[in-house]
Amino acid sequence: MDFSNNRVCKLFNIQYPIIQGGMVWASGWKLASAVSNAGGLGLVGAGSMKPDVLREHIQKMKTAAEKPFGVNIPLAGKYSPAQVDVCLEEGVKIVFTAAGSAKLHTPRLKDAGVTVVHVVPSAALAKKVEAAGCDAVVAEGTEAGGHNGREGLTSLILWPSVADAVKIPFIAAGGIGDGRAMRAAFVLGAQGVQLGTRFAVTQESGAHPNYKSACVAATGGAARIYNLTHMPIRSLMNDYVKEFCQKEAAGLPTEELQAFRGKGRSQKGVFEGDVRQGELVAGQTCEAIKDIPTVQELMDRLLKEFDAAV
Amino acid sequence: MDFSNNRVCKLFNIQYPIIQGGMVWASGWKLASAVSNAGGLGLVGAGSMKPDVLREHIQKMKTAAEKPFGVNIPLAGKYSPAQVDVCLEEGVKIVFTAAGSAKLHTPRLKDAGVTVVHVVPSAALAKKVEAAGCDAVVAEGTEAGGHNGREGLTSLILWPSVADAVKIPFIAAGGIGDGRAMRAAFVLGAQGVQLGTRFAVTQESGAHPNYKSACVAATGGAARIYNLTHMPIRSLMNDYVKEFCQKEAAGLPTEELQAFRGKGRSQKGVFEGDVRQGELVAGQTCEAIKDIPTVQELMDRLLKEFDAAV
Repeated sequence: MDFSNNRVCKLFNIQYPIIQGGMVWASGWKLASAVSNAGGLGLVGAGSMKPDVLREHIQKMKTAAEKPFGVNIPLAGKYSPAQVDVCLEEGVKIVFTAAGSAKLHTPRLKDAGVTVVHVVPSAALAKKVEAAGCDAVVAEGTEAGGHNGREGLTSLILWPSVADAVKIPFIAAGGIGDGRAMRAAFVLGAQGVQLGTRFAVTQESGAHPNYKSACVAATGGAARIYNLTHMPIRSLMNDYVKEFCQKEAAGLPTEELQAFRGKGRSQKGVFEGDVRQGELVAGQTCEAIKDIPTVQELMDRLLKEFDAAV
Repeated sequence: MDFSNNRVCKLFNIQYPIIQGGMVWASGWKLASAVSNAGGLGLVGAGSMKPDVLREHIQKMKTAAEKPFGVNIPLAGKYSPAQVDVCLEEGVKIVFTAAGSAKLHTPRLKDAGVTVVHVVPSAALAKKVEAAGCDAVVAEGTEAGGHNGREGLTSLILWPSVADAVKIPFIAAGGIGDGRAMRAAFVLGAQGVQLGTRFAVTQESGAHPNYKSACVAATGGAARIYNLTHMPIRSLMNDYVKEFCQKEAAGLPTEELQAFRGKGRSQKGVFEGDVRQGELVAGQTCEAIKDIPTVQELMDRLLKEFDAAV
């Protein structure tokens, strides 16, 4: 496949329209630089980083990445304004924002010459992203791991709807684990793809080996959305999630439920590898994940499968 | 597109690998015969029919359909054994079964020379369908309207997994509303597609005009799964579903909740057109549904879009 006229490749000045999504505890400078060096776009996931940690990762990226890279900032986090400051101070050229309003930081980032992309779960929000002046939009279906839209639109429904709704380049996310799914995304109007869980389960990912093995072992059906009433999160069913759901069914008040979840659950699961009591943030893509390749092996395979799927 | 070597077309002796799914209150002889006559495969949906009503519809089909047709039987219904009897007595040549074990009636139907297809929500169950001797399998993602698998696998995840798991022809269902989605299904390994909600919103469908208009007006996000703890059903959010969910959140016992839903909710919604108090069974495909075409217009459009989407 020739991507020389691909709008996403042109926008980011990259070789292949494959983006590694920002993820908590998995996508530091090591994973992101490997993706960028392999011709895709690596994103440092700021979600689990205090501003000084983010700065350190960006500085390491500048040395490790020979090609363009970006930073992903979930706007719901309390450090997000400071994270935007760090990106500007460090001269980051590409910023993806998510989980909040695209209007919040886009003007400031655009004024500084940053390429800005925002992640949405619906066509209505994609239009708002375009109106806010973003350069591209990521449309993420409900199969994705982590925080999830309440409406639960699947990628098959969401992607063509967003493709019809906006003129800016649209990047498909949610449920892409191989080159066939990447091809399907292009058929449905995408000009690029963003993969999260699939990149979390590579050699260079910062996730714990136990987490990676759990994703390889899991079927897609094991990656369920829980905590629906407060803040929907897709993660692998385990002892912790079962207990959470039991407490919820028994009518435990929201505050007590959130206190039970606590602050370090995803760190415990993804980073520390506690597969029983941690939150194993992951998407339904686990259905297609059967190994732990290097980023270069994965990229090669994705492009080969993409070419073969017609 | 040339379908002369398509396995689904060959299996059913039809022109196009497009199947109209069996639906409660929408897919009687009138809709099914229109689909068959347009070159697809129309299915009489037995779900909402007592055995004598099903017999009447089959007899009318024999007159109205000039080409092959079938019957869809949800096995969870109490009339399903009698419905199988009626199909055999009337010489129906194609039977789709769903919501139950493929082993239940397949041997009896196969002995009578019937082509048998079973609907599943996972690759593990698709293998069981193959082992039970079925001729093909329908893999239906969670975006579909009506009764839904508990695991919630989306079509993007489910389809390639089933394509890899079985050798019998696999028909993709769940979320297909246009020819782009049909093309994506083929990219992901399908040899045919089954459309439900999209056919329910045609001129020939037996659904009430109010129901059809509600589907046209709805976004995909309005088609939610509710009644998760007892029997997950995807239908349009309305006064009734809101009240059901409120009662559920307030801790109403399952029996009282199911009594509140009652027996005639889908009839009230789909057939009688009570858009406030009825159950408006529908899939996320509503996102793509913007008109109420004739079956012939829809078939022409699907094939044109399928050819254009590459």
